[in-house]
Amino acid sequence: MRQSELFYKTLKEFPAEEKSVNAQLLIRAGYIKKVGAGIYDFLPLGFRVLKKIEAIIREEMEKINGQEVLMPALHPAELWQTTGRWDIYKDLYKLKDGDKDFALGPTHEETVVPLAKQFIRSWQDLPLYLFQIQTKFRKEKRAKSGLLRGKEFLMKDLYSFHADEKDLDNYYEIVKNVYLRIFRRTGLNTKTFLTFASGGTFSRYSHEFQTLTPAGEDLIYICEKCGQAVNREIKAETPKCPNCAGENFREEKAIEVGNIFKLKTKFSEPFGLKFLDKDNQKKMVMMGCYGIGLSRLMGTAVEVFHDEKGIIWPKEIAPFAVHLLALGGQKVSREAGRVYQTLRKKEIEVLYDDREKSPGEKLVEADLIGIPVRLVISEKTLAQKSGEIKKRERKNGQLVKLSQLGQFLSKGKK
Amino acid sequence: MRQSELFYKTLKEFPAEEKSVNAQLLIRAGYIKKVGAGIYDFLPLGFRVLKKIEAIIREEMEKINGQEVLMPALHPAELWQTTGRWDIYKDLYKLKDGDKDFALGPTHEETVVPLAKQFIRSWQDLPLYLFQIQTKFRKEKRAKSGLLRGKEFLMKDLYSFHADEKDLDNYYEIVKNVYLRIFRRTGLNTKTFLTFASGGTFSRYSHEFQTLTPAGEDLIYICEKCGQAVNREIKAETPKCPNCAGENFREEKAIEVGNIFKLKTKFSEPFGLKFLDKDNQKKMVMMGCYGIGLSRLMGTAVEVFHDEKGIIWPKEIAPFAVHLLALGGQKVSREAGRVYQTLRKKEIEVLYDDREKSPGEKLVEADLIGIPVRLVISEKTLAQKSGEIKKRERKNGQLVKLSQLGQFLSKGKK
Repeated sequence: MRQSELFYKTLKEFPAEEKSVNAQLLIRAGYIKKVGAGIYDFLPLGFRVLKKIEAIIREEMEKINGQEVLMPALHPAELWQTTGRWDIYKDLYKLKDGDKDFALGPTHEETVVPLAKQFIRSWQDLPLYLFQIQTKFRKEKRAKSGLLRGKEFLMKDLYSFHADEKDLDNYYEIVKNVYLRIFRRTGLNTKTFLTFASGGTFSRYSHEFQTLTPAGEDLIYICEKCGQAVNREIKAETPKCPNCAGENFREEKAIEVGNIFKLKTKFSEPFGLKFLDKDNQKKMVMMGCYGIGLSRLMGTAVEVFHDEKGIIWPKEIAPFAVHLLALGGQKVSREAGRVYQTLRKKEIEVLYDDREKSPGEKLVEADLIGIPVRLVISEKTLAQKSGEIKKRERKNGQLVKLSQLGQFLSKGKK
Repeated sequence: MRQSELFYKTLKEFPAEEKSVNAQLLIRAGYIKKVGAGIYDFLPLGFRVLKKIEAIIREEMEKINGQEVLMPALHPAELWQTTGRWDIYKDLYKLKDGDKDFALGPTHEETVVPLAKQFIRSWQDLPLYLFQIQTKFRKEKRAKSGLLRGKEFLMKDLYSFHADEKDLDNYYEIVKNVYLRIFRRTGLNTKTFLTFASGGTFSRYSHEFQTLTPAGEDLIYICEKCGQAVNREIKAETPKCPNCAGENFREEKAIEVGNIFKLKTKFSEPFGLKFLDKDNQKKMVMMGCYGIGLSRLMGTAVEVFHDEKGIIWPKEIAPFAVHLLALGGQKVSREAGRVYQTLRKKEIEVLYDDREKSPGEKLVEADLIGIPVRLVISEKTLAQKSGEIKKRERKNGQLVKLSQLGQFLSKGKK
């Protein structure tokens, strides 16, 4: 895409009350705009990042036989009264429509169980895996962390339904690994720790995926022996690592980017979600739920990957693969235009800075926007019949012959 | 996809209060589930139809330089107070968060104008075209028409920003044609009429796209001379066709599937959305807005395309291209399995009914679900080394040799 046509503008000023690094950088670089506390517009650049994250998550969900559905945000109050959460779920937005009460869904157990109930009759209908990528609402009092904690946010929630606990346990392990793969693909893996958390009344443990960042509001304790972690609650309960019985931990600040939970029959019971088993007995369906916040993951990536100049996107979730800068006059623009067409033909996603701006301005903006690979065409590089390729996180670039640019950058595609 | 693994079930019973044909058929065939009046879950089949419609609309928006954004559903009350619509927009859901008031967006002029304002400085930033595909909320008292009139629904809204009226007029004509193309691609074109409607205070006319169906709540008047239509309001105002001055009209029931509107400066003024023109003067930005309801379009297609047996999807928005039925024992299943793999290799989207059900049940269900092409493999067709291909709307099928099925169905792909 030509940068002269892209709807964005880097800003020097941005809302003073935005204290978080992710909001500051994403607003300044033209990815998002603040609408209210914890409420943001996603501009084209930000929308592209969301779509990249969405595509990775969708692909991984489909690999483990997830079937995609779309449930509503408006939930009749009765559903939340059935589970007893209408009165105790503290962040629930409530609204009236005539004399009817509704909640805005912060999570979807209350709708997915009635949905499953309509279709699950016997053991032959199990297991079942339903997921959606959908907007959630939470009355968030601490909405001061940009995309890390929103009143409205995009989330993937997967719900699994099983005939017995063993089948739930098996699938839970599968999802655990898929989550680790999602964090690997989004570039967060080295900073993200599988973390034991409380399982509530129905299970011993649940698991969180916690990403280390000074912006994190959670404290986790990483076992020095096995590299898994426990959250505060578990640390207070037990001095040993639940995974390897190690006893030495280091404390770190972290943000929860995903969580997985064995619900067992917690929600099946209030809705009476049963099935007829092979022995002709009615049994409760066992459930698991598995969440990842897409917008939160985007904010977390910025918290983890940035420097004093701007964002440094991991490759798979960057809005573009290559940022092509034409630094110079007509001749340079003409050559850069040719390179742009070549890269497009190779289906490389390229943002082409074709604007009439000074080289200094363009370079500063490119660092702020943070596309992983920068390709500069200037008088100097053209004197060598080359362009200069530099990775965003590196200090120095390398010259690559114009005739070889397409091939060179195609290799790096995946 | 194997039907044995698809999350759906055709139902004999469905909510008695659903009077509309689209809700009855979509619920019975396993596309949607009712959550409350005007609120639905989309099951995998229904979600696939939505995604097909979304892909067509997105592609057409991008062709006319639309840039995709995502605006929130939660709107701070001040935005709606700025335009004066907080008190007069009758279908607005309002809710409290602490002492702050919010609306759930039924439309997004109140957020897109402040967004554009942050980035539009001069004539060089114009024109600008922003669109989103996003969930809208409307406090709908007449939520009795299934997907035709929801409290929560999926919509594409495009907003255009221009330096002058001429540029707005030009783009408006472009969008008009693109809308006609969208209705052509979704199969609704022969039933959909460009309809003159009131333009409000700022313009003489706006346009609706009205699809003829007995389920429609609107009355339109089609000009016998030019084939364009006027809505009730315009008919009452003027006896002549605004397009061709024709005087003979036929009255029809219809549903509004899209509308386009020249807003001019209606929303620019309250927000002070101005730009610096070439003559160094500050001027108001001219705007247009253009909507299509995705879920409504899906419901409308069902109203228009069905028979007593079920739905008959237009090709481009069908959940699958081909419905493969194995009618018979093991040998038939083995052959059908082979055909399934062949079609998948050819990237034909196929739903494969591999279940152990009677041929009668499978055939009845296939008609209800309404995939455009049915491919039957049975003892009888295998005796001819063939499968029987039948279009959903036709009475008779034709035998095609097994070895030629892949090629035969590939041809029909687009």
